[in-house]
Amino acid sequence: MTDQPKTDHPEGLSGRERMLRAARRQPVDGPPVWIMRQAGRYLPEYHEIRQLGSFMETCRHAERAAEITCQPIRRFGMDAAVIFSDILVPAEAMGMDVSFEEGKGPRVQPALRSRADVDRLHAFDPEEDTGFLADAIRRVRKEVGAEQAIIGFCGAPFTTASYMIEGQSSRNFENTKAMLHGDPETFRELLDKIVDALIPYLGMQVDAGADVLQIFDSWGGALSAATYRESLFPPMERLVCATKALGCPVILYVNGDSHLLELLADLGPDVIGIDWRVDPTDARARIGDRTALQGNLDPSALFAPAETVVRMTEETLDRFGDAPGHIFNLGSGVLPKTPVECVQAVIETVQRRRNP
Amino acid sequence: MTDQPKTDHPEGLSGRERMLRAARRQPVDGPPVWIMRQAGRYLPEYHEIRQLGSFMETCRHAERAAEITCQPIRRFGMDAAVIFSDILVPAEAMGMDVSFEEGKGPRVQPALRSRADVDRLHAFDPEEDTGFLADAIRRVRKEVGAEQAIIGFCGAPFTTASYMIEGQSSRNFENTKAMLHGDPETFRELLDKIVDALIPYLGMQVDAGADVLQIFDSWGGALSAATYRESLFPPMERLVCATKALGCPVILYVNGDSHLLELLADLGPDVIGIDWRVDPTDARARIGDRTALQGNLDPSALFAPAETVVRMTEETLDRFGDAPGHIFNLGSGVLPKTPVECVQAVIETVQRRRNP
Repeated sequence: MTDQPKTDHPEGLSGRERMLRAARRQPVDGPPVWIMRQAGRYLPEYHEIRQLGSFMETCRHAERAAEITCQPIRRFGMDAAVIFSDILVPAEAMGMDVSFEEGKGPRVQPALRSRADVDRLHAFDPEEDTGFLADAIRRVRKEVGAEQAIIGFCGAPFTTASYMIEGQSSRNFENTKAMLHGDPETFRELLDKIVDALIPYLGMQVDAGADVLQIFDSWGGALSAATYRESLFPPMERLVCATKALGCPVILYVNGDSHLLELLADLGPDVIGIDWRVDPTDARARIGDRTALQGNLDPSALFAPAETVVRMTEETLDRFGDAPGHIFNLGSGVLPKTPVECVQAVIETVQRRRNP
Repeated sequence: MTDQPKTDHPEGLSGRERMLRAARRQPVDGPPVWIMRQAGRYLPEYHEIRQLGSFMETCRHAERAAEITCQPIRRFGMDAAVIFSDILVPAEAMGMDVSFEEGKGPRVQPALRSRADVDRLHAFDPEEDTGFLADAIRRVRKEVGAEQAIIGFCGAPFTTASYMIEGQSSRNFENTKAMLHGDPETFRELLDKIVDALIPYLGMQVDAGADVLQIFDSWGGALSAATYRESLFPPMERLVCATKALGCPVILYVNGDSHLLELLADLGPDVIGIDWRVDPTDARARIGDRTALQGNLDPSALFAPAETVVRMTEETLDRFGDAPGHIFNLGSGVLPKTPVECVQAVIETVQRRRNP
């Protein structure tokens, strides 16, 4: 490509350059690729490390977190290393008790149900209370150098609040929506406290070396666009704006976002992550060239035979086309029992699409 | 309303007339209202009857099923009585073992994973194998007379197939999608067998007195529009077409259908049920006047205080506006622990909107 700046990487762009350029909608030699939850449960070497401590202990152990982060990079050479951590680390630092029972998801106690409960949450000092994450990022940088981008992240305010209010995973978010609709002042106070905590927490990740930040709104898709715009937009806009001011591209991923795309684009992120239900052509038509797109192969498709996975990966690439601004990913996190060879099939198929 | 045909109902339209007219987009004095799962778990009198037998036994007991169907009508006077039954009744009649463990959802055994498994499913005779449902419908008719419409139903082919393949509730449908993408011939054979069974099963319900039929696709929203169109459209079209030929209005409800609306309209149902995430104005803009709409208050909103529920019900009515062709409902089934007074608040708020 003639319009590409010179790089000292002999084989073309490094993964890091490819990722950063795609996030900013600049031309690349082919889409960068990473996979949500790539550092985790589907890899046998992950389970070996997890023998040594609980899930939250592993998050707080910089050396182990860095090791887990690098495991998929060594196997597959993705373009970005997403730091091994959890979206509930800030909730713990704000005073909640966070634990994971295997196969049951998080418990976040005591659940917040009143203004007095919300008032008990406290601010925290990122370096002092969550410095292990900065340490892990620095360790990953030592291993990956300038080859891979490092992705830092946080949970979005709604997702974080829903765990705090429900006290655990929830299918219907009864308590969260009861507060959102029935006591909007308390709900807004909670969101504001979460955003206040997340901004310096993300700042710490950038200072430690994160190149890109992703805001995960795992459950925001459970809200109508009207409710999201009325109740979530102001705190989300403040978070996205402050995150962009840190100088990194910001990826906003909302699972189940097909009805929210225009609204998410209005929030001003650099990249919108679309889930597998969203047609990329439709997404592009709806949000224009305001953001890059990330996605969106169905993670459940990776349970089909590897040759089917290759075909579906190619179809996904075709749907996005060659326009600048596509970061290849699954449409949601890779699932626990996913066959490793199918993850490999995805990554290799995307890598084969690159211009020589 | 001057363009309304004369009716011998002294207080105006009966609930049944209101429901049937709205489903056909004819003018009414205000939207009819019913609630998905209105005959069920949030009512104390339901739990009393359920003491007498297991869930599937209750479905198979015509007298109890009829009693449960009528319970919410006596309390709230909805316009339609949806028959108490389960979408897995046909799966049981086709030879699968179906059971429910309280709070855990269904178990459907043995799970189907191969062509040989699918070949073991057999056709069934509706009257002989599921005549209890016809009996229940006739009993309900005796109680409600011409006042309420009776809604019969079935599960959609994808939803039915996903239970058969996963063997239980599933969050990600790994096995179902592995078959859909990896062995599409077997998957299509399964869908065809299900449709073959459902058509006479729905016919039996109409013969017994059902006025309206709803096809529940609880999990169809987990598919992209491209996958739905390629793999589900042909069998769904056959089902919708044959169901309409029975002479009743057909409601098609797909949870999580915001990305599927145009496709669902192409299937030709009389009514599309939209979930609470879908903006009614947007739905109307996308599908035009091809179908009536049913929905779509968020069932989790019913955990807010009753006055909030009243306000949100009014806002939902406003979003649909006064154009013909709206059936008021929740955007998904009423949840187990929903306060009864909040269900009452919804129904009364809709009823208050009627022209005198």
